[in-house]
Amino acid sequence: MKVLALAGGVGGAKLAHGLAMTLQQGDELTVVVNTGDDFEHWGLFVSPDLDTVCYALAGLENPQTGWGRAEESWHVLQEMRTLGAADWFALGDRDLATHLERSRRLRSGQRLSEVTASFCSAWGIDCRVLPMSDDPAPTLVETVDAGVLPFQEYFVRLRCEPRVSGFDLSAARQAAPAVGVLQAIQEADVVIVCPSNPWVSIGPILAVPGILPALQMHGCVAAVSPLIGGVAVKGPAAKMFRELGFEPGVMAVAECYRDFLKAMIIDFRDEKYATSLTQWGIIPYITDTYMSDKNQRRRLASQILEFCQLLLKGGL
Amino acid sequence: MKVLALAGGVGGAKLAHGLAMTLQQGDELTVVVNTGDDFEHWGLFVSPDLDTVCYALAGLENPQTGWGRAEESWHVLQEMRTLGAADWFALGDRDLATHLERSRRLRSGQRLSEVTASFCSAWGIDCRVLPMSDDPAPTLVETVDAGVLPFQEYFVRLRCEPRVSGFDLSAARQAAPAVGVLQAIQEADVVIVCPSNPWVSIGPILAVPGILPALQMHGCVAAVSPLIGGVAVKGPAAKMFRELGFEPGVMAVAECYRDFLKAMIIDFRDEKYATSLTQWGIIPYITDTYMSDKNQRRRLASQILEFCQLLLKGGL
Repeated sequence: MKVLALAGGVGGAKLAHGLAMTLQQGDELTVVVNTGDDFEHWGLFVSPDLDTVCYALAGLENPQTGWGRAEESWHVLQEMRTLGAADWFALGDRDLATHLERSRRLRSGQRLSEVTASFCSAWGIDCRVLPMSDDPAPTLVETVDAGVLPFQEYFVRLRCEPRVSGFDLSAARQAAPAVGVLQAIQEADVVIVCPSNPWVSIGPILAVPGILPALQMHGCVAAVSPLIGGVAVKGPAAKMFRELGFEPGVMAVAECYRDFLKAMIIDFRDEKYATSLTQWGIIPYITDTYMSDKNQRRRLASQILEFCQLLLKGGL
Repeated sequence: MKVLALAGGVGGAKLAHGLAMTLQQGDELTVVVNTGDDFEHWGLFVSPDLDTVCYALAGLENPQTGWGRAEESWHVLQEMRTLGAADWFALGDRDLATHLERSRRLRSGQRLSEVTASFCSAWGIDCRVLPMSDDPAPTLVETVDAGVLPFQEYFVRLRCEPRVSGFDLSAARQAAPAVGVLQAIQEADVVIVCPSNPWVSIGPILAVPGILPALQMHGCVAAVSPLIGGVAVKGPAAKMFRELGFEPGVMAVAECYRDFLKAMIIDFRDEKYATSLTQWGIIPYITDTYMSDKNQRRRLASQILEFCQLLLKGGL
């Protein structure tokens, strides 16, 4: 089975890792990752979602934070503070090598997707990881209290505190999909939208020209709700829904993906929405969607893949 | 007393540190540092001599190696290796912050001398450290066996193994002295040429337009021989002298500086050259010039400064 996953940061990385652990030989996994969070820090190009996904796939991730590297040290950051550099975005020593070497290669003319492929190979990652685009596609967050903010300013520096009124994805709308993205969607037997933030993780991917139409034409797209009982496992998704005037929950997530969604994986705590989903023509699959550890990632991925097999066979 | 020191890497850094420790309140020390060794590594601007001098002055240096930082870790380097980056030039984690933040500031338009002043302030360095130039002035090493080599290729990657036939200092000859350098030489009561390599540490400084004439007009320049008993304390100075056809020793060093040297500080193991120096019109001062630890740096600096006081009073 050819599986394509759309992923943002932590939640997306967990499920992508689960899928990679579960898929059998001969199966193929492509993960298309949001790059709307990318920004420059300390003069380096930082791609937080791409790194979170790759570190998870490579088993290098920090299990406590969900982002960054395991067994990390912070000596560079400490010295950067002494020199008066910005320290609101914490880059650890091991993590820093990724940004350093990627920045060097990008400046020398390589594409982000090329660098990513090379790093995946170095880290022993078997599946294919593609940035949504090789072009810069920074997400801007429109807020009520603090104007228009670059994503990381909103997300990290201001800890998601400003109230959101919208998102400016115009850069993503003008970016070309990375080479291979559209073909991978077309060739996938199933597309899985990971439990990532619909506004700032999946939204930018959908904004890249060609990707939404490819999903609409696909026929077998399943999304995993990032909200459980109306609450986000991590991050500001629920807060964003509320600030934008939506009741945070499974149906609000389904609304975001409604025009291309065949099925939706929801938590048993949200079982009550199964009927509404069915009424919308979306096939619900109910399970425990919380991934507390590696075994849970594997368990959820395995259940989703079995469910998708049934979808493909037309058994549902 | 206003003291100006010309310095390269390890030997220069040691004496500069000794001078900084010895000078009294009201005294002033300016260290002008070779930047002919500067190069780009991992996409970052690295200035080895400037850093060695600053780390020594700040008490941050690695006492074992003479270069780099004390209590250093190597996590970034380890990860860079995994990603296939060049690892022949070892940058430690704490050291890396210097190159990162300096590179960021240079790219944003600051001058090297500005960045250096800011870092010195952050590191609590009281004296003034000036790069010889704010312009790139890379030294090229002309070799018999390996053609023309960028300095660090010769020095670190090839471990000074190729036989030297000359040096291309044309970049230094076209560089402007950093703002303040010529004035600091003019205003100094005494100029001390540190025990650094005459060819690749002091030579590039002398090649920067205006510096040699300023020294020739100065009247009180004293050099400390980097060779003791014909042997370099560290580095390829003796090997270079031999390959260029000179007998390595005090007289060969004196020859390099002959047209502006008033005095020379030589080791007691080289006492026999005192007469020859005197015949050349250079006043010799004989002492133990080997600086094995901090106390020895202070002791040598203190002796040199007392000697220079006598020179200034015309007592010699």
